[in-house]
Amino acid sequence: MVKTSDTRCDLMLFGAVGDLAQRKLFPALYQLECGGLLARESRVLALARRDMGTDEFRDQLFENLKRYVKPAEFDAGVARSFLERVEYRLLDFTDPAGYDVLQTWRDRPDNELIVYMATPPAMYGVIARNLKAASCCNENTRVVVEKPIGHDLESSKVINDELGEVYSENQLFRIDHYLGKETVQNLIALRFANNLFASQWDQNHISHVEITVAESVGIEGRWGYFDKAGQIRDMVQNHLLQLLCLIAMDPPADLSADSLRDEKVKVLKALKTIRPDMMDSYVVRGQYTAGTSDGKPVPGYLEEEGANKGSETETFVALKAEIENWRWSGVPFYIRTGKRLPEKLSQIIIHFKPAPHYIFDPDQKHLANNKLIIRLQPDEGMSLRILTKDHGLDKGMRLRQGPLELTFSETFETDRIPDAYERLLWEVMKGNQYLFVRRDEVEYAWRWVDQVIRNWRDSGEPPKRYAAGTWGPVASIAMITRDGRSWYEDV
Amino acid sequence: MVKTSDTRCDLMLFGAVGDLAQRKLFPALYQLECGGLLARESRVLALARRDMGTDEFRDQLFENLKRYVKPAEFDAGVARSFLERVEYRLLDFTDPAGYDVLQTWRDRPDNELIVYMATPPAMYGVIARNLKAASCCNENTRVVVEKPIGHDLESSKVINDELGEVYSENQLFRIDHYLGKETVQNLIALRFANNLFASQWDQNHISHVEITVAESVGIEGRWGYFDKAGQIRDMVQNHLLQLLCLIAMDPPADLSADSLRDEKVKVLKALKTIRPDMMDSYVVRGQYTAGTSDGKPVPGYLEEEGANKGSETETFVALKAEIENWRWSGVPFYIRTGKRLPEKLSQIIIHFKPAPHYIFDPDQKHLANNKLIIRLQPDEGMSLRILTKDHGLDKGMRLRQGPLELTFSETFETDRIPDAYERLLWEVMKGNQYLFVRRDEVEYAWRWVDQVIRNWRDSGEPPKRYAAGTWGPVASIAMITRDGRSWYEDV
Repeated sequence: MVKTSDTRCDLMLFGAVGDLAQRKLFPALYQLECGGLLARESRVLALARRDMGTDEFRDQLFENLKRYVKPAEFDAGVARSFLERVEYRLLDFTDPAGYDVLQTWRDRPDNELIVYMATPPAMYGVIARNLKAASCCNENTRVVVEKPIGHDLESSKVINDELGEVYSENQLFRIDHYLGKETVQNLIALRFANNLFASQWDQNHISHVEITVAESVGIEGRWGYFDKAGQIRDMVQNHLLQLLCLIAMDPPADLSADSLRDEKVKVLKALKTIRPDMMDSYVVRGQYTAGTSDGKPVPGYLEEEGANKGSETETFVALKAEIENWRWSGVPFYIRTGKRLPEKLSQIIIHFKPAPHYIFDPDQKHLANNKLIIRLQPDEGMSLRILTKDHGLDKGMRLRQGPLELTFSETFETDRIPDAYERLLWEVMKGNQYLFVRRDEVEYAWRWVDQVIRNWRDSGEPPKRYAAGTWGPVASIAMITRDGRSWYEDV
Repeated sequence: MVKTSDTRCDLMLFGAVGDLAQRKLFPALYQLECGGLLARESRVLALARRDMGTDEFRDQLFENLKRYVKPAEFDAGVARSFLERVEYRLLDFTDPAGYDVLQTWRDRPDNELIVYMATPPAMYGVIARNLKAASCCNENTRVVVEKPIGHDLESSKVINDELGEVYSENQLFRIDHYLGKETVQNLIALRFANNLFASQWDQNHISHVEITVAESVGIEGRWGYFDKAGQIRDMVQNHLLQLLCLIAMDPPADLSADSLRDEKVKVLKALKTIRPDMMDSYVVRGQYTAGTSDGKPVPGYLEEEGANKGSETETFVALKAEIENWRWSGVPFYIRTGKRLPEKLSQIIIHFKPAPHYIFDPDQKHLANNKLIIRLQPDEGMSLRILTKDHGLDKGMRLRQGPLELTFSETFETDRIPDAYERLLWEVMKGNQYLFVRRDEVEYAWRWVDQVIRNWRDSGEPPKRYAAGTWGPVASIAMITRDGRSWYEDV
């Protein structure tokens, strides 16, 4: 175990009564406490506009920890000991005068100061300026911000500029919580520690890549919020492009934050622009209609509570991304994500090219490419599809597709897999930026996504409908079928 | 299921009361019968020198089937129905006059004739000539013979010449029962149906290969027989070199018997001759002394029942084989086999080269080569060792070696894995020679092995001693350690 003094910090949490803080951040801090990873000297200052005292806040938080931490992992004693170091202050984030109270709280100059903005992005600039004016931060302060960084390239620049006026890039920790998932980080180990894969990770050996992030839920009461964004802004610009970068990037010379992020940016810069004339074969935009989910009837997107019946916001998008560089020329990355799909499933599939010459039963030739399946959820793990000989005597040299399986929860059964926010908070405390998104990553990702959104707007074409409980519009299947391929189904 | 008429045959089994026939061949025929793979019209003529009638033979055989077939797989009804098609005849194999009786039995000219010589090799020529003289065979007759084909190149040529006088090469089915093992055949599927492996199967990607065939048993009452041979003749010349060929051969253009065997012969021809001056660093010869097996004390080789105390026969051999061709230049194949080793274990380990550049914790660099472990016994299956990220938050990007596992008995749990002899008898009935050893394979294998035996004889050096229950002489460990490597141990 590391020396806990490494991570002693004062954490100012803006938006402390919000959903993210209560469901994710405090439970993550609680888990760090359980693991002995939160220094005894570390403290949390919870900030929000609600008028209450520290005791009331602690009582509410205790109940929420009990609710959001798995029962088997909840220990009331640990929770209380953690809560003793949490204080609450009422603060109007926009009012500079109120920030004096923070200065009073900061009486341990040895503790690193971490500012976590669990607020709408419009607040980031205001908070940053007010903190500076109140002399509440210096060049060592670490600042954590959440997505979305804007809703397009221009608005993201405004936010990044506002933050940049107060903080330098090496103080900014932009969260994409996918980067905190163990399996996502594992992509780095998988790719660069295993020459078996590293030496085949290019257009000579890989035919195409699939990335699917499927949700079975619908809008979950967030219709108004979601409708302004849509699936491409909400999921592709950040999570799916981050996954694509980790799969596609050239090997970094080391594991430093900038070596990794330089390589990711190279991928984003090399993404082929999807021009208007390419839309039909590269992009499918969908919106769900009434259907079923888990066997129960569910309403369509336009029939959800609070829906504007004329909305053309997409709840599904499938894209063919091409990376114009030496490694990936000619290798499409098919990505898709949507709501109200048949199951909650996130997976990446690397389709290797078949052997140059085939000597087994001709009717089994379709089996003859190896696949590496990386599951992010459920059941984090990976599976390599290889062909072996079928056993029956009367089957001669018939082949059979068998999996080489590694399921993390089974293999490493003594370990708990930490939640993404535990990992990310821990890395902020350690000052490691390698799992956080740099400004230029955000902006190049927006540049690529913006073009698609612009094409949609210019064409005026509405999204294609798909029934809830299906894998999106049939056009998504048609898109990949035209290339002689299909979305992978585990059979 | 195939049409059973494909395989209708008359099987003449010479040596029908011997150990091989009773323990292996009849149980295998019984299993074919169970699987519906033995045509109703097929019959067996059991031949031996013992004076008894068919009824007595059947009764004895019924008891032996009950004994050697797994209880769960034994069905008395099936056994009896099979036995009805088995007849027994007394025959002195050396007496041409007796062979008339075979002609009488052969009254179904539509049945393919298979002659199985489960006899000492010295009999092969005699039986072949007598069968011919009695007009008991023609150019369609298939002849199955067992190892050993001689005890060196010269004597193997004599046996092959005798058989060749009567039969052409495409009638001869030389058994190496390792080729009947499912996992061994699986090497063909693994290598040539999976481009993930096929494209890396060379000196650019593989650093070295290990082949271990370890027995925990000692001499098992066969001292006199074994002492004339020794481990290199008994195991290396046939089984281990066959495994080496299947791992090392170039991809055949098709799966025909001669395409496969041509490629295997190319490997045997390319084996670097081990000259006298190379012996110290390429070969270790051992003989076990008293020690333990399964926790019980066991005698040394020279103290076994019937032992000649002065014997210098080896019960262990470790060899570094080098293949002088484009694919394998610079890639040693370390092979070892012995009796009274700590466990019964046959495995092949492909050690892939590490990635060209290493970016993880320096103290984990020793983990950084991928290994493919192919287990022949126990628990046939394979395991790919890959590196993943360790889970603990405080471990940063530490690596962990995890297996991607495929165990045949688990994965294909509905199937029985057929015994090697079932597979081999089935292939004889189908007329497929691809799992049988061609004359030139036998002879090139002897050529390479003979040189080592000649070097031993010329040097006069006795074998190195090792205690029963250890992994052979320490010189075996020293041999591989000098190359900066070690025998793989699953930890």
